[in-house]
Amino acid sequence: MSQQQVDLDILIEEVRAALAEGNWRRAVALIEALRPPDQAELFSELPPEEQDVLLPRLDVEDSADILEELEDAEAARIASRLEARDLARILDEMEPDEAADLLGDLAPEQAIQALASMTEVEEVGPLLAYPDDSAGGRMVPPPVVLRQDMTAEEAIAHLRAVAPDSETAYYLFVVDEGNRLVGVVSLRQLIVAPPWRRIREIMDPHVIHIHARADQEEAARLMARYGLLALPVVDDEGRLLGMITHDDLVGVLEEETTEDIYRLSASEPLDMPYVDTPILTMFRKRVGWLLLLFVTETLTGTVLRYFEKELSEAIALTFFVPLLIGTGGNAGGQVSSAIVRALALGEIRFRDIAMVVWREIRTALLLGMVMGVAGFIRAMTWHSPPLLSLTVGTTLCAIVLWAALIGAILPLIAHRLRIDPAVVSGPAMTTLVDATGLVIYFLIARAIMGL
Amino acid sequence: MSQQQVDLDILIEEVRAALAEGNWRRAVALIEALRPPDQAELFSELPPEEQDVLLPRLDVEDSADILEELEDAEAARIASRLEARDLARILDEMEPDEAADLLGDLAPEQAIQALASMTEVEEVGPLLAYPDDSAGGRMVPPPVVLRQDMTAEEAIAHLRAVAPDSETAYYLFVVDEGNRLVGVVSLRQLIVAPPWRRIREIMDPHVIHIHARADQEEAARLMARYGLLALPVVDDEGRLLGMITHDDLVGVLEEETTEDIYRLSASEPLDMPYVDTPILTMFRKRVGWLLLLFVTETLTGTVLRYFEKELSEAIALTFFVPLLIGTGGNAGGQVSSAIVRALALGEIRFRDIAMVVWREIRTALLLGMVMGVAGFIRAMTWHSPPLLSLTVGTTLCAIVLWAALIGAILPLIAHRLRIDPAVVSGPAMTTLVDATGLVIYFLIARAIMGL
Repeated sequence: MSQQQVDLDILIEEVRAALAEGNWRRAVALIEALRPPDQAELFSELPPEEQDVLLPRLDVEDSADILEELEDAEAARIASRLEARDLARILDEMEPDEAADLLGDLAPEQAIQALASMTEVEEVGPLLAYPDDSAGGRMVPPPVVLRQDMTAEEAIAHLRAVAPDSETAYYLFVVDEGNRLVGVVSLRQLIVAPPWRRIREIMDPHVIHIHARADQEEAARLMARYGLLALPVVDDEGRLLGMITHDDLVGVLEEETTEDIYRLSASEPLDMPYVDTPILTMFRKRVGWLLLLFVTETLTGTVLRYFEKELSEAIALTFFVPLLIGTGGNAGGQVSSAIVRALALGEIRFRDIAMVVWREIRTALLLGMVMGVAGFIRAMTWHSPPLLSLTVGTTLCAIVLWAALIGAILPLIAHRLRIDPAVVSGPAMTTLVDATGLVIYFLIARAIMGL
Repeated sequence: MSQQQVDLDILIEEVRAALAEGNWRRAVALIEALRPPDQAELFSELPPEEQDVLLPRLDVEDSADILEELEDAEAARIASRLEARDLARILDEMEPDEAADLLGDLAPEQAIQALASMTEVEEVGPLLAYPDDSAGGRMVPPPVVLRQDMTAEEAIAHLRAVAPDSETAYYLFVVDEGNRLVGVVSLRQLIVAPPWRRIREIMDPHVIHIHARADQEEAARLMARYGLLALPVVDDEGRLLGMITHDDLVGVLEEETTEDIYRLSASEPLDMPYVDTPILTMFRKRVGWLLLLFVTETLTGTVLRYFEKELSEAIALTFFVPLLIGTGGNAGGQVSSAIVRALALGEIRFRDIAMVVWREIRTALLLGMVMGVAGFIRAMTWHSPPLLSLTVGTTLCAIVLWAALIGAILPLIAHRLRIDPAVVSGPAMTTLVDATGLVIYFLIARAIMGL
């Protein structure tokens, strides 16, 4: 009964079998019966030759849906194999923001040829002026725009004439003579108002809006916070340029989270899906951090060399090095990830630093005592001398506390300095804890074991 | 002009000043001029005494909005201080799913008292049967439900009579005589249809829907994939129970991502916002993983003890231990986070394992060569003997490759076994790489340095 229960794997086989028999009508029918996200998923599983056979034979609206739903890189690959005329026909059917993105991903000469054959060029053209990841690069034209001097009756007549087929037409944006955004009316407000009333008297003049050059993340956050289906985009003069719709919201928020997860693991975010990223790009996104952390991590070697005398007197000290720095890194990582996430969700800000540190100190004291006892017992069961076992236990407790402090403070400071807190919270923090943790270890060893 | 540019910090001071003067009318006016998310943010910054003074004096709709927008724990704290009658009045105004959540967070006797005074109890009652994080726990009653044997004209008349004030009324769900979900009509389809046409002839019978006991994440994924504003919820017999609306979407997806980020840093996800979590809960969520990783990490000690002879012959081998295992952990972490995220976004599946491993091997070969050379140079500049430097360089190259393999395969296998891949991809993976990486180190040292 429900479309999502369609088994795409079976359908792909059916489509391929139909194509193998030369029965492309059946393949087209199978695809056209699906919803756009399923069409795109099935389509992307086909080999390029079969994609090239099918795409021009699909209804142009379905082709447009598929190119919109595909990942950017894949859409660009497929589009680049199309005739300029065929491509222009499909681009005309696409949402203007998606069409602009796709044009931006094509070779310049092909993009120019396609633009030259398009009829909707006046909708797409202005979008090309803004980066893909800005509010302006994500906008589409509002389906209906009202003038503030219209009456409710005139507005309804206008709405009927335009007959927008979109749930976003629930919000009707209002402009003045200079096309400046001055208000918003809901469909319901319009319908219940007396027919002779002017729009300016019905509308809500406080419209949440965004500037075209603002970051798309800011737009997504506003839409999520206020539960908006459509966010109007304006230029420097406050003129209504377009609107961002709710379908872009999830994609933008997911991009943002992906960046956080990559940065927390010391990698630059990829600019495209994992499977589409060339090996050399993957290498470039990772090698810088790996080298930087390597250089920082050599600090641990410096610390070990500095305490070479202690080490050679008690080689058994060595056995606990990975254990101690590993636990410090883990304890610090737990804290910093919690802080990064709380910052991303807006649960805490820099001014909460005292509260955060106090929470983390108390938690770390509890954790440190448990880990200290565990470490002491582990060392004793390895038949380490009691003083060494005591050193290990004490160090574990101290390192857990120290790591929690670093893990709490670093991301908050980064946030304050407008650096992405995720950048300093993963391995960067761990590496810092490694070297300083070893210093703590040897100082405690000197004190307790009298080395 | 736009509401989001309101400076909440200044407003909070004005509200507090007004309350200090006993001028609660001004405080109420200041709050009621804001949008609900801003009202809640301001409200949560006030001390409890001031919250208690203000809440009963606000318009009941504003109070309901504020309790809906506040974090669950804070809403429950504030609600628990209200009189049962006042609370019931506010609960009646809240969205039924939010009211049910709040009731579930109160002490049972207070929840029962509040329920007894509520008038909308028939809307909230059924929701209490489902867990907060299931589709059933997130649903609200559809604003309008159509019967399939209505005509288009009757449906429009029904819609006018109900006059729903919601953008989600764009989707009109259709049921049969047994209240079973049989279709969906858009507002536009209804308006352009001939007035005598029956709904069953206009509607789309393929409705994406979800079962009440399904996980809320599944609901959010469906809504995001198909760009839905409302997802109908059904019971075992396919009867329409309610619908999930788009405002829940972002919250659910964010919860899911938060879980991933916590698990990637070896912590159990908190069930409530960071700032509301008691210290003992934070301790409990972290201590298990810390101990488990500690026990696993003692493997590194076992490896070091096993190679004690080699270590005592060449104490300089020790200096590189943190560097080698740190780099291995970092390289493995980069890979596993990329895989976890690609899995979460549905970009890859288990059957892609060969492709993923092949991508990661090639990337790791490049990274391994760079790190190997860097390690060799670093060791030489520390005036290590050439054979030791060669050992360090070779080991770095081998560990990067090994870590990439583990980092790619572990999350894919976990995903296949229906374990959250994030669980095995952070420190769990690193710890495994630490111990095995040391074995690689000493075996290479034996071979090259002839220890």
